Amino acid sequence: MSRLEATETYRVLQAVRERGPLVHCLTNIVVAGFTANVLLAVGASPAMVENDREAAEFAAIADALLVNLGTLSAERARAMRLAAESATAHERPWVLDPVAVGAMSFRTDLAAELLEHRPAVVRGNSSEVLSLAGAAGAGRGVDSTVSSDAAVSVAGDLARRTGAVVAVSGEVDYVTDGSQTLEVHTGHPLMTKVTGVGCALGALVAAFSAVEPSPLVAAAAATIVLTVAAEEAAAASSGPGSFAVALLDALSVLDQPTLVARTAAR
Amino acid sequence: MSRLEATETYRVLQAVRERGPLVHCLTNIVVAGFTANVLLAVGASPAMVENDREAAEFAAIADALLVNLGTLSAERARAMRLAAESATAHERPWVLDPVAVGAMSFRTDLAAELLEHRPAVVRGNSSEVLSLAGAAGAGRGVDSTVSSDAAVSVAGDLARRTGAVVAVSGEVDYVTDGSQTLEVHTGHPLMTKVTGVGCALGALVAAFSAVEPSPLVAAAAATIVLTVAAEEAAAASSGPGSFAVALLDALSVLDQPTLVARTAAR
Amino acid sequence: MSRLEATETYRVLQAVRERGPLVHCLTNIVVAGFTANVLLAVGASPAMVENDREAAEFAAIADALLVNLGTLSAERARAMRLAAESATAHERPWVLDPVAVGAMSFRTDLAAELLEHRPAVVRGNSSEVLSLAGAAGAGRGVDSTVSSDAAVSVAGDLARRTGAVVAVSGEVDYVTDGSQTLEVHTGHPLMTKVTGVGCALGALVAAFSAVEPSPLVAAAAATIVLTVAAEEAAAASSGPGSFAVALLDALSVLDQPTLVARTAAR
Repeated sequence: MSRLEATETYRVLQAVRERGPLVHCLTNIVVAGFTANVLLAVGASPAMVENDREAAEFAAIADALLVNLGTLSAERARAMRLAAESATAHERPWVLDPVAVGAMSFRTDLAAELLEHRPAVVRGNSSEVLSLAGAAGAGRGVDSTVSSDAAVSVAGDLARRTGAVVAVSGEVDYVTDGSQTLEVHTGHPLMTKVTGVGCALGALVAAFSAVEPSPLVAAAAATIVLTVAAEEAAAASSGPGSFAVALLDALSVLDQPTLVARTAAR
Repeated sequence: MSRLEATETYRVLQAVRERGPLVHCLTNIVVAGFTANVLLAVGASPAMVENDREAAEFAAIADALLVNLGTLSAERARAMRLAAESATAHERPWVLDPVAVGAMSFRTDLAAELLEHRPAVVRGNSSEVLSLAGAAGAGRGVDSTVSSDAAVSVAGDLARRTGAVVAVSGEVDYVTDGSQTLEVHTGHPLMTKVTGVGCALGALVAAFSAVEPSPLVAAAAATIVLTVAAEEAAAASSGPGSFAVALLDALSVLDQPTLVARTAAR
Repeated sequence: MSRLEATETYRVLQAVRERGPLVHCLTNIVVAGFTANVLLAVGASPAMVENDREAAEFAAIADALLVNLGTLSAERARAMRLAAESATAHERPWVLDPVAVGAMSFRTDLAAELLEHRPAVVRGNSSEVLSLAGAAGAGRGVDSTVSSDAAVSVAGDLARRTGAVVAVSGEVDYVTDGSQTLEVHTGHPLMTKVTGVGCALGALVAAFSAVEPSPLVAAAAATIVLTVAAEEAAAASSGPGSFAVALLDALSVLDQPTLVARTAAR
């Protein structure tokens, strides 16, 4: 396995900052505010449009789409189908974050259906990726019960089968298109002590996909940016509350030397 | 154009702190928490009641109403119509924040319909105000693509036509009733890097309108309070995360000397 | 009246940290993110599943359930009934937080119906508890208009009638099962200046009930943990914004000496 260069990562981050992609987010009530703030912190422009009257129309206007299955409802499920279909029809990259898939059939079936609308990237934890691939190892809730190492070969199968890049979050993060796999070793345990950090990563992947033609590079770059910023934030905080605040600050000032130094050290 | 005196601004802020108006918010999932915290920070009492079974009843109980069109849904749209109608029938001031109006017909039509229920104040960015007025210049999403200067004469027309005070947010903020226009020069660029600062201004305008009979004065005072607190917060923060936190702290302690000094300097 | 020992409180907190109970939250759009972060800060695992297709299924999987009536909708109301019924059927403890009950008949009727599904704990402010008990003293919105002292005897009646432990939040907090009443004297006025602190207490009570067989002890311990952390946070903050951040930090490091010292002093 290989890694994305820090200079490449920085190039994609700068493209986001310069072009300010409009990211259409269909996400959940728990993390919507934090997700928007993470996107703003990297210079993207978030817009949450989640009703079935506007979702398709807006997916065609926006530069990228995030579909996150947390706090699903019947109306959101309808809007998700319409938005995903529209994004693909209008050649907008879109990201599927299959939150808690596997635990319950409603969202598991919806995720399988959404996969047919060809997301550019699927991002989840190991349990979610295994469940989506139809493998064993379903989680009980939103947190993973298996390591990302265990999911990486299944992720490759899923990528080859669906044509989507699959990003598996964990202690080590893996991003694979089924032939090439990139690994990311940066990050900090406090990321699991704040709600929505994984969800925000899905949104970042969408923003990065709007400016970078390779979904593999976009997903890896977004993961590196978030995890390096998390290391910076952890060093400046004294618990999960101040960490979440510092993470936004760190994202907004992240520079190339920091990316180089932190990725070299890990 | 003229400006509202800092002493007048402070008088209205103090009235909010002393009377603690109950502000009924029909707002969106992205900013609901931050909006509630901004209202609490100035001494108002937020209550989010957004279902169509309770919205009319609660609008008659509350001291003011905010209707914010972000993350619209069919149920929220029904509740908004009922709440706006009830607020006007019970002589409660209400504020319309037409988020992303112009981009899509569902919300553009709803906003036009809501305008007939006579809001005391319409608050939006330039793109939203131009769209609402039926003029060119529609934005793509939630952020404005034209300056507030360009929107100010259209805002005056809209105010005369609807009877609502129109507040246009931008680098300079304008508040107009169609005959008199107040301008606000305080503020900080970090306000655009945190989600919901504009939405929170809509809520503040509602709270201030509950204690101040002139919607023009209420809207200008709320704008000055938020933008001066933002300058204080920016001076005490190191990025968008810490700015959002510091903004709440600054609002809770904002005093007359600070208002006088910051508005005099701008 | 008596108090729960700090050592007992710490024992329950440590059990939460060690066992990481999965807490199913049916809560509102204003506080969902903060609630999740409070649960994570004490080592619990939050999951917000609020649609009527999944609510019953997930309540049987989770270790405890929170039903919070803020930002009620028709779909959430259906999901709440199903989740509460499922939790009781599967012997999962569940907590009812009857936000703003009394002000409007939709939620007052729903709360009365939910009570029949035998919550382990009802947590509310004085107005809500009085309203739920059918007594006078209904509040206008989400904040209480009567003191917790006035509600304590009514709370005892409600506990005896329903079999639920009743926790009344206020300047002094009371937790009663109808025969024994525990009082909690720790806390800080800033708790009322941040949205969702009371709602987060409901979630903590659910988490603590998952690991402690006595709902009376669980509710008192959760109340002490939150109010002591609030005192710690208030000492480290300069307003409601930094207080909310510091509260999460304080919860994540709360230790036995701090619990002993703060409860002894009050």
